[in-house]
Amino acid sequence: MEQKFAELKSRLSEIHDLRRVQELLFWDQTVFMPPGGGPVRGAQLETLDRIAHEKFVSDAIGALLEELRPLEESLDYDSDEASLIRVTRRDWDKARRVPAELAAEMTRAAADGHDIWAKARQDSDFATFLPALERNVELKRRYIECFAPYEDPYDPLLDDYEPGMKTAEVHAVFDDLKRELIPLIAEVANGTDDDFLRGPFDVGAQHELSLELVRRFGFADDHFRLDRTVHPFAASSARNDIRLTTRYKESDLTSLFTAMHECGHGLYEHGVSEMLERTPLCHGVSSALHESQSRMWENVVGRSRPFWRWFYPRLQSAFPDALGGVEPDRFYGAINRVRPTYIRVDADEATYNLHIILRFELELEIVNDRIALRDLPEAWNTRFKEYLGIDVPEDRLGILQDVHWSGGGFGYFPTYSLGNIVSLQIWEKVRDALPDLEDDFERGEFGRLHEWLRENLYSLGRKYTPQETLERITGSGIDAGPYVRYLKDKLGALAAA
Amino acid sequence: MEQKFAELKSRLSEIHDLRRVQELLFWDQTVFMPPGGGPVRGAQLETLDRIAHEKFVSDAIGALLEELRPLEESLDYDSDEASLIRVTRRDWDKARRVPAELAAEMTRAAADGHDIWAKARQDSDFATFLPALERNVELKRRYIECFAPYEDPYDPLLDDYEPGMKTAEVHAVFDDLKRELIPLIAEVANGTDDDFLRGPFDVGAQHELSLELVRRFGFADDHFRLDRTVHPFAASSARNDIRLTTRYKESDLTSLFTAMHECGHGLYEHGVSEMLERTPLCHGVSSALHESQSRMWENVVGRSRPFWRWFYPRLQSAFPDALGGVEPDRFYGAINRVRPTYIRVDADEATYNLHIILRFELELEIVNDRIALRDLPEAWNTRFKEYLGIDVPEDRLGILQDVHWSGGGFGYFPTYSLGNIVSLQIWEKVRDALPDLEDDFERGEFGRLHEWLRENLYSLGRKYTPQETLERITGSGIDAGPYVRYLKDKLGALAAA
Repeated sequence: MEQKFAELKSRLSEIHDLRRVQELLFWDQTVFMPPGGGPVRGAQLETLDRIAHEKFVSDAIGALLEELRPLEESLDYDSDEASLIRVTRRDWDKARRVPAELAAEMTRAAADGHDIWAKARQDSDFATFLPALERNVELKRRYIECFAPYEDPYDPLLDDYEPGMKTAEVHAVFDDLKRELIPLIAEVANGTDDDFLRGPFDVGAQHELSLELVRRFGFADDHFRLDRTVHPFAASSARNDIRLTTRYKESDLTSLFTAMHECGHGLYEHGVSEMLERTPLCHGVSSALHESQSRMWENVVGRSRPFWRWFYPRLQSAFPDALGGVEPDRFYGAINRVRPTYIRVDADEATYNLHIILRFELELEIVNDRIALRDLPEAWNTRFKEYLGIDVPEDRLGILQDVHWSGGGFGYFPTYSLGNIVSLQIWEKVRDALPDLEDDFERGEFGRLHEWLRENLYSLGRKYTPQETLERITGSGIDAGPYVRYLKDKLGALAAA
Repeated sequence: MEQKFAELKSRLSEIHDLRRVQELLFWDQTVFMPPGGGPVRGAQLETLDRIAHEKFVSDAIGALLEELRPLEESLDYDSDEASLIRVTRRDWDKARRVPAELAAEMTRAAADGHDIWAKARQDSDFATFLPALERNVELKRRYIECFAPYEDPYDPLLDDYEPGMKTAEVHAVFDDLKRELIPLIAEVANGTDDDFLRGPFDVGAQHELSLELVRRFGFADDHFRLDRTVHPFAASSARNDIRLTTRYKESDLTSLFTAMHECGHGLYEHGVSEMLERTPLCHGVSSALHESQSRMWENVVGRSRPFWRWFYPRLQSAFPDALGGVEPDRFYGAINRVRPTYIRVDADEATYNLHIILRFELELEIVNDRIALRDLPEAWNTRFKEYLGIDVPEDRLGILQDVHWSGGGFGYFPTYSLGNIVSLQIWEKVRDALPDLEDDFERGEFGRLHEWLRENLYSLGRKYTPQETLERITGSGIDAGPYVRYLKDKLGALAAA
């Protein structure tokens, strides 16, 4: 039995290596690769993906999982070994349900869809995108059928990013959030002057400040890199080899928030227990839990008053021309300014969620066949007006702005806001455990926060389901309450100031 | 038959992808990887190596090669298809002869040997290295037996780097070279003043000059990178994604020659026919042919008078303090100064070969069991005195200086000098075809040289054996004559000046 387990682990390590190498190759492609390498890189990524997939869905792994049932049952549920068998069985069952031809068709349709979407967005022409969207939706329906029966056809899609989460739960928390958020935003949206946030801010100084934040938040130099790319992300080649990426513009300070955001993702991957290295458990547990960490470091920490009491003097001395004459309160108000805008990725902390809720509602209607795809632009515009109070002037700034649907990526959007919600559920527990935590931030110290998160969340990796993980930390399921309270307190205080 | 060929090609492309990815991972490890990534990177490289090896030595590939014999015989010998089958059969036959356990033992012994050697070199203590050397030699003997029968036990080792080359041929050309070189060096060695080569030379300016050379020699910006590392090398992720590496020291200008050297390797890989991309033929054909190109661009071009007529004014304006008052002739004399020194990698163009010939002679004696390993330091020192006229003061500067033997890497050393020899055989043909070529260099133009080499050598990749390749270009086998003439002319003229 010991030997069977060793064989399973060795096979899974091999597959995990291939997956990590894919991640590194993607990082290299977007950060350092000379453009001429593109076509062959695509083929290399396909090769690694095919080999990893074939090795994973093999009968041999299925047989080992069966043979190891007695071992699993004899072990503590919390043990690394039982968890590895349990989680792998779930992954394997899922992977075996999708025929290879369908997976290949979806990959092709996604690649085609991406290029068609990019052109359609540029031209703000939804009609030219429609056929590609139809094709991707049709394939997604076939994909969903691989997982029948289900409560809601959206469930299998959500499950790809948020294992075990049900559509009905998301609906419930999003309804709670929406009910509170629409009137709150109408109340606190404001025209605070933030012209001083347009710089110019020297890009070299932004890089130094970004590095300082990443180091202060808890990364040793031997364990990370921070490089420039077009669409920032965090990748991991190993627990102690985290590749953060960011971008700099002279005309704003977004890079600081990007650095904190990607650092949050990176700290999660970096903090997984060493015992789980080179296993499929060596990863953040779900998109929402991952996003809860990027958002916590970016927003809950990085847009807080205590943080800026420490960091604002540093920022002023880095950019004396732009910020020398700007009072701390004005700066704090400007980086927390609430204002309805068209583009999700540029949206403030509060309005961001309404972009997501709208996407989620439309995805549900698409998958449940309750809307004709050609009617999506109008549906987007109508509801955008209803939720955020502004008229969308063109589809480029509305339905066409995001890449996800071009590759059939339904089910991902909700995890962005679920991440916000979860971040505050966890944050309340952090505050209970460390009531004087914000004093640390005023001194630029984040070690106790990092350590608490590492111990209570990061180290677990994928041992438990997202729900089990959240339950272990907070004692409850997903709940919009803490996040709503946080936004009301923070934004209410700002509006009253 | 068409389908069988497509299947072979598809399997080989997959394996080739894995090999290229290994190369990229190695590049990343030495150039950008945070140190914390080391242990997992080692595991990732092992995984890729094992999968690629297993896929290649499979019975399935053997069966396809058998089934494709009729197709191969029906095709033109020069066709890409026949060449792919022919070369793959040779590779496969060779790979199948080595038992997996032996290969694994050799890998472990090499890893252990490396660390022990590094310590022994530091301490200049051959005795502590001896047991690791003995182990590696013993394994190498078992490896050699996998290829019995052979004329000389050194043949199978040489064949790993120089397929088809026989020990007797190397012996013959090295004897020719040694006979000419020993008296030539004694005659032309000199004490020319080269103190001005100690800088300081600003590292940023060295990088800009290096980039300019790489671009002028023929690389478009979309197809390469030039980064810093400790031990420079060139890696290739694809024909149009070449990663050159170099190093800079303020105290000398070695980086310029390193850039030209690695650029030569890179241009070879970059110039392989597009039709061979993602096949095992997409590579330089052997170590010696590869080295002939790095040496041609570094030495035959990069240490020539016409080249410096163009480049020296640029160098002077980059480093006016160090070189402003140094006449071109003095500079040219200094970078071509011949002088016996201890360390191979720092040796001049001429004495370098005697380091190599000495290594080759000792390797032959080791493999043929004509020397006790403990006697190697004395044998090195005695012959070094005989060939180069200087006494080796400690083993760190003698027998222990090079890494190769620590991992059982016998058979590689000779290819360095074979590369020098071949570079001049090819160069004579280039000069016949383009008699006024050096006029180009004086204008900083290298396009005609690059194009000739691409057409006549680089594009062939591994389609032909190294011998066939050389024969196609020069009409003859390996011959030290052109190289000896070149050294005599160049160094004789310098000594007379």
